[in-house]
Amino acid sequence: MRKITKNDRIGYITKTLSENPKRVYTLNYFADYFNCAKSTLSEDIDYVRHIFSDFSLGEIETISGAAGGVQYIPSLTEEQKKEFCQHLCQVINNKERIITGGFIYTNDILFDPSITSMIGKMLADPYQKVDVDYVVTIEAKGIPIALMTAKMLNKPMIVIRKSARLTEGTTIQMNYITGSSRRIQTMAVPKKAIPKGSKVLFVDDFMKAGGTAKGVTDLMKECEAEVVGIGVVMTTAEPREKLINNYQSLVVLENVDDVNQVINVYPSK
Amino acid sequence: MRKITKNDRIGYITKTLSENPKRVYTLNYFADYFNCAKSTLSEDIDYVRHIFSDFSLGEIETISGAAGGVQYIPSLTEEQKKEFCQHLCQVINNKERIITGGFIYTNDILFDPSITSMIGKMLADPYQKVDVDYVVTIEAKGIPIALMTAKMLNKPMIVIRKSARLTEGTTIQMNYITGSSRRIQTMAVPKKAIPKGSKVLFVDDFMKAGGTAKGVTDLMKECEAEVVGIGVVMTTAEPREKLINNYQSLVVLENVDDVNQVINVYPSK
Repeated sequence: MRKITKNDRIGYITKTLSENPKRVYTLNYFADYFNCAKSTLSEDIDYVRHIFSDFSLGEIETISGAAGGVQYIPSLTEEQKKEFCQHLCQVINNKERIITGGFIYTNDILFDPSITSMIGKMLADPYQKVDVDYVVTIEAKGIPIALMTAKMLNKPMIVIRKSARLTEGTTIQMNYITGSSRRIQTMAVPKKAIPKGSKVLFVDDFMKAGGTAKGVTDLMKECEAEVVGIGVVMTTAEPREKLINNYQSLVVLENVDDVNQVINVYPSK
Repeated sequence: MRKITKNDRIGYITKTLSENPKRVYTLNYFADYFNCAKSTLSEDIDYVRHIFSDFSLGEIETISGAAGGVQYIPSLTEEQKKEFCQHLCQVINNKERIITGGFIYTNDILFDPSITSMIGKMLADPYQKVDVDYVVTIEAKGIPIALMTAKMLNKPMIVIRKSARLTEGTTIQMNYITGSSRRIQTMAVPKKAIPKGSKVLFVDDFMKAGGTAKGVTDLMKECEAEVVGIGVVMTTAEPREKLINNYQSLVVLENVDDVNQVINVYPSK
């Protein structure tokens, strides 16, 4: 094989770290791979850190000590966040999306991997330096964004079902009341999915009054787990008072006018 | 800002391409960003291509012509594929996964972003140079792997529902019979989700006789779309004859012995 250069090592390290957010690689991992001195690699990683920081590509963090190493932490500048939320609003503010009954068709957005990747980065962002064990969502439309959020945090995802599944073994099941339409719904989670004492981030596509988020919070209490944060893509402007508090949303839906065919969505802050 | 070096450009190009599989970036995109000559960038991209190929990180493809540019195509060596399938079998072959009724608990595998990323790469691999417009799956357990497959192909995902949703507008709905248990089931897809003439790749977590895959194939015909391939994570050894042919699976389930607490799963070929 050809002689390995600094360029090679920088390319390899960048590819490995950026494809695996929040995964810690030891210096030895790279040193063994390239069969070179740890001091050389230490310099290379310093260089990669500068590239990421100078070009706003995220953060490269070095963890010292025995369990130490290096990891890529996805992060966004305020400018990047603002730009993405504006883009999202532009995509949503399209009267073709209006479905009879005042709903908005969003499948193409929520199921587009390039958009969900960015949503995942956005929703994970405030929790990159917080203790989170799992990203929790409720089937089915929340799954793609929850998975991408989980990927950015390098944590497993847990999917709450709307009814218990035979293939998932013993479940903890709970009835709850939706916040806006006051209907009784069921949610179920496999008993073995959530260890006691877990800290979870709840992620969903849409929130109105917050009944589902409140339900999930209660279900997590039953599992002796704790919801440390809630992230949703879109929330409605009304009701202003939600059933839960600790949430962030990317965009706010002011109204959908079914008759005049107008959607009004704006960035959250 | 400091002087930009070749290392900087290689790091930036590598990060941008590897985070966005199958997305074509023009030479101008990078040339404008770095304010440098296209010839310089052309050399840098050549270098990145060598790094990817020499260290088995995937493929960097240059597309010439007016719509030309450069893209990262995720690909795996035979060795990497074999290793991953063996790892997957090891994880599944654990009697703690057995659920009364002869089922296997796999949520923790299918909902783990690092595993689903690799599954997505594996399932997308045979279709990287084939014309695919959408990755289709059926709710809910197939969604994470379908999303990751879609990400690796840079195509949108479409989720077939087990019943029509009010929030998804007009749907095309179909009844079908499951292959193994001969039960009548329903599947529904929003009418606006699939344009006529689309070529789709169907992805799911599990296949027994192939009744669901056959149902999806029929539903796609109703939408005047075509299933060009089927990818599943696990298929059962029996029945040997499936209701569909054009599928790949990663691992084969020989049997689950509920009484003696044994699972037997092996790599597909």
